[in-house]
Amino acid sequence: MHQLTIKKLFKNPLAYDQKNLTFKAWVVSNRGNKKVRFLTINDGSTAESLQCVAKEESLGINVLDALDNTHLGAAVLVEGLLKHTPEAKQNAELVISKFELLKDSDLDFPIQKQQINLETLREIPHLRHRTNLLRAVFLIRSTLAYEIHKYFQENDFMYFSAPIITSNDGEGAGETFNVNDSNSKEPFFGENKATLGVTGQLHAESYALGFNKVYTFAPTFRAEHSNTKKHAAEFWMIEPEVAFYELNDVINLADDLLKTAIKNTIAKHEYEFKFLVENVDNNLINKLNKFLNNKISIIDYKDAINELAKVRDEFEEKNITFGLDLATEHERYISEKLFDGPVAVINFPKEFKAFYMYQNDDGKTVAAFDLLVPGIGELIGGSQREVRNDKLLERIKEVGVSQEDLQWYLDLRRFGNAGSSGFGIGFERLVMYVTGVDNIRDVIPYPRTSGNIKM
Amino acid sequence: MHQLTIKKLFKNPLAYDQKNLTFKAWVVSNRGNKKVRFLTINDGSTAESLQCVAKEESLGINVLDALDNTHLGAAVLVEGLLKHTPEAKQNAELVISKFELLKDSDLDFPIQKQQINLETLREIPHLRHRTNLLRAVFLIRSTLAYEIHKYFQENDFMYFSAPIITSNDGEGAGETFNVNDSNSKEPFFGENKATLGVTGQLHAESYALGFNKVYTFAPTFRAEHSNTKKHAAEFWMIEPEVAFYELNDVINLADDLLKTAIKNTIAKHEYEFKFLVENVDNNLINKLNKFLNNKISIIDYKDAINELAKVRDEFEEKNITFGLDLATEHERYISEKLFDGPVAVINFPKEFKAFYMYQNDDGKTVAAFDLLVPGIGELIGGSQREVRNDKLLERIKEVGVSQEDLQWYLDLRRFGNAGSSGFGIGFERLVMYVTGVDNIRDVIPYPRTSGNIKM
Repeated sequence: MHQLTIKKLFKNPLAYDQKNLTFKAWVVSNRGNKKVRFLTINDGSTAESLQCVAKEESLGINVLDALDNTHLGAAVLVEGLLKHTPEAKQNAELVISKFELLKDSDLDFPIQKQQINLETLREIPHLRHRTNLLRAVFLIRSTLAYEIHKYFQENDFMYFSAPIITSNDGEGAGETFNVNDSNSKEPFFGENKATLGVTGQLHAESYALGFNKVYTFAPTFRAEHSNTKKHAAEFWMIEPEVAFYELNDVINLADDLLKTAIKNTIAKHEYEFKFLVENVDNNLINKLNKFLNNKISIIDYKDAINELAKVRDEFEEKNITFGLDLATEHERYISEKLFDGPVAVINFPKEFKAFYMYQNDDGKTVAAFDLLVPGIGELIGGSQREVRNDKLLERIKEVGVSQEDLQWYLDLRRFGNAGSSGFGIGFERLVMYVTGVDNIRDVIPYPRTSGNIKM
Repeated sequence: MHQLTIKKLFKNPLAYDQKNLTFKAWVVSNRGNKKVRFLTINDGSTAESLQCVAKEESLGINVLDALDNTHLGAAVLVEGLLKHTPEAKQNAELVISKFELLKDSDLDFPIQKQQINLETLREIPHLRHRTNLLRAVFLIRSTLAYEIHKYFQENDFMYFSAPIITSNDGEGAGETFNVNDSNSKEPFFGENKATLGVTGQLHAESYALGFNKVYTFAPTFRAEHSNTKKHAAEFWMIEPEVAFYELNDVINLADDLLKTAIKNTIAKHEYEFKFLVENVDNNLINKLNKFLNNKISIIDYKDAINELAKVRDEFEEKNITFGLDLATEHERYISEKLFDGPVAVINFPKEFKAFYMYQNDDGKTVAAFDLLVPGIGELIGGSQREVRNDKLLERIKEVGVSQEDLQWYLDLRRFGNAGSSGFGIGFERLVMYVTGVDNIRDVIPYPRTSGNIKM
């Protein structure tokens, strides 16, 4: 199954010097004259393209003509001798000995040499990944996902599939999508309401009880009408849940997970990160390295409020007292100005957190954390779970969630549940943080937002 | 982050002989008297439990009393000296020096010593994984998922997230769920219909064009009312798509992927497979080894029809001629009797296959394959895709799918598309095949079927 990719070639071009190589790939640029043509091709293994040179003297005029008539985006087969060129801009070049046009591209192929802005590219989600920027983003996305799986598997976590269609609204926020059979007026699931899951957490808790360490990695859905750069109706979440863990343990887990996955991803994408630094954010690698080399900061919510109150004039919302639900402007101030790096805000007032969080002794706050990162705001939300049946039931009644729907969840507290903690990472927000791309629509292949469902 | 699990201990008990170890785990059995008690505990890392012995002479009567009052399912902390016992049934035992009851379990904890049948367990999906059988199944499921990701990543595939909510019915079968905002009469996605995806393939094709080798691993949905052992309304699919591949290439890919993932999974779960052989199917390992050691067989659909026609009396559906859509009884005969192993049936009549499949020169069949396996029937469906715009459009019109909805998909043919091939593996069916468990409801944590949506 193994075949040579352009990525592998560029990793060690010396190893392929003077070897005869074959690639099937797509044309990225094509210039030259009747005597010599320079073709760059990309095979999707990296954002980096390979320059190939074709000479009339060895290939003949017919092949040069065929090359001349090959359009950007065309699928080609090239065979030739590799030359290691350490002194050149690119340290490898292929001297074509055989060329085959596998399938040309029509002239209206929208990805041409001139740069297209990201808004315009969003109109063609089926083609936009054939630009360098989106290629880099989606390759990094793939590796990041795998490194997250790898981290969990190597640390004894069981991968668990929470149901997507569920009758429980895990956050109690009510921003759910209903699910109905397209072809029948009869409800597919009988009397039960059926919605798309907003979290896998409640179900993951049941599996942490018995399996100890579990995680989900799955799509979640919010019927959220906010039209911002960081909200989508469909996005992927990673939700670890660990029995016997308390708040500090999961913050440490988040720290270790993020660092390991980001570090390994950077190591696998030297070219893509170079490209992003040059084209998206020249501070990107510095920012990521700073995170890799420092422990996540922790600040108590009430201390954060005190700090924010000192500079209240900087904010639109100036009424900064205990009880304020932090807005993005406050979150960004905390991570960007106060800490200049990722920071976990802990012990939030229970009023604006979900019912399942552990109630602290002060009677006012819960053992929750939000991980805020520069440029994004909230990347992770997590908590220690309320394991005391009476406290949990009291809170369920207070917030008005149906006890009947959640009786199974309450019952988990009766069967050897010594507590658990967990968190949810918005995967696309993590991709935004790692790539420096500032709009969630550009890190999801086919983004879904309010009013928008292309293809 | 690393801590000793019972799985790691059993891998090399000699390494821990005479060492002081601590485990947080759940009580699986608890027997003995006032002088000596035997506690077995499970920490979820393996289906295998660890025996611990507590002696009154060293711990005192209070601890023995506390142990006596600890119920099945309770969460406990045990600390003690490990004894390597190669002569005993279990080759390790922990002599308890410290015991702590972290959280007891109520007396109505349903998982007690006597075995419960799988139907009854389906009523308690939040607790059933605390039995040995379901523990084994879900641990294997997790590893199998990871080994599939690993295979693809090591073979240069990009992991790609196809949209779940889509306006395209990729199979054209119409068995879709609609998605609506729970809180609004206004359609969330505007004028467009919004359904849950039945496949990520069409979108994956767009990404194979440019990235070359891509795969999805995501939930898919069918509003299918059939109430069988192998159908669920929500299940996970793995869909690789590879540019430049033809039918034979993807059959080889399926063969290599399945063998690699299954072999690696077996190697990681010695105890779980031993348990399944003893409790579910004593031929399980033989069956899997036979598959691992033989190439997938291939038979042309028309030859399969000829073979089936010879034994038509064995089937309910006896009218066996070219054009028959194989039923489960036929599929099982082919894989179980004719080949006694996995077999790819290829070149099906186009009438009962989806519109996007490559039309063979005979004008009657398409370059599709179904991989049939003993005990399950269809495990994989795949095909070479129709890359010729005119042929594809003709078929779209014939089957009555909206051309307007699929114009983007047709357009992929105009921009350097030299063809691609791919397939979909029903992940849960693969878990059934690998574990020997014969009902899909027992390999999904919270199964969703017609009329059934527990929790």
